[in-house]
Amino acid sequence: MKHLGHHILVEYYDCSSKALDDVELIESAMREAAVKAGATIIESVFHTFTPQGVSGVVVISESHLAIHTWPEYGYAAVDLFTCGEEVDPWKAFEVLKERLKASNYMVMELKRGKVTPDMERRAASYFEDKFSKVSASAAG
Amino acid sequence: MKHLGHHILVEYYDCSSKALDDVELIESAMREAAVKAGATIIESVFHTFTPQGVSGVVVISESHLAIHTWPEYGYAAVDLFTCGEEVDPWKAFEVLKERLKASNYMVMELKRGKVTPDMERRAASYFEDKFSKVSASAAG
Repeated sequence: MKHLGHHILVEYYDCSSKALDDVELIESAMREAAVKAGATIIESVFHTFTPQGVSGVVVISESHLAIHTWPEYGYAAVDLFTCGEEVDPWKAFEVLKERLKASNYMVMELKRGKVTPDMERRAASYFEDKFSKVSASAAG
Repeated sequence: MKHLGHHILVEYYDCSSKALDDVELIESAMREAAVKAGATIIESVFHTFTPQGVSGVVVISESHLAIHTWPEYGYAAVDLFTCGEEVDPWKAFEVLKERLKASNYMVMELKRGKVTPDMERRAASYFEDKFSKVSASAAG
C-alpha cells in the first residue's frame, strides 16, 4: 500500500544539557540532519526559551523536521517528517543522536497518508479535470 | 506520570481539494487554529508546491503546528504539538476540520516526554547547580 509521508517521532533521553540549551548548536545540528537525510532546506526558525530550552523547525521541500528541548531533564522531542523516496529520516536521526549526545532514545516510525483505491480514483479524476482545463485554455 | 508535550497527529481525508491547494486559506486556517487553541504565535512559514500542494509550520511559544497537503488525494497530514496546560490542541483540530472541509479523519494522540523519577532528580540537580552559580556570581 502506498503512503505519502514517512514520520519518525524520537524521544531523546539523557542528552547533554549544555547542547540542549545551545540554540546555535541545535540549529546547526538540525540543518546538518536535514542535509544528511538528503532534504532540501527551505527555511529554518529557531528560538530560545527563558529560563532554558530551545524550539525550532526546519521546513524542507520534503516536509519538516522539528525539535523541542528541555535541558533540565536532558530530553528532546524530535519529529522527522519526510516525503518521497529520496529522503531518509533515519540519517537525520543518527546526526541528532550524536550531536545531542543522547545516551537513550525511543523511536516511533509511522507511515502517514495511506493511499486507498478511492483516493487513487479521486487523484485520477483531479488530474483529468486539471488537464482538460489546460487543454481547453490552450485551444481557446 | 508527568509528560512534557501533548502531540495530536491527524490524517484528514476527503477534504476540499480547492482548500488544500490554497496557501492563503491554509495559512489563515493554521494561524486561526493556533489562536483558538490558546497558543502564542512566534512565526509561520508556508509554501506551495508545483504542481499542487501546500506545506507549512506555525511555530508557537508552546511548540508547533505543521501541515502538509495533497489536494489530488483530498488528504492533509497535520501535527499539533503543544506544551503546558493552557493550550488545547483539540481546539486547533476542530478549526482545521472545518476549514479543510474534512469528511473523514483519523487521530492519534500521544503524550511526549514522560518524566521519570531519574529525570526529576536530574532537573533538581540542574537547577541547584544553576542557582549556586548565580549566587556565586552575585557574591563575587
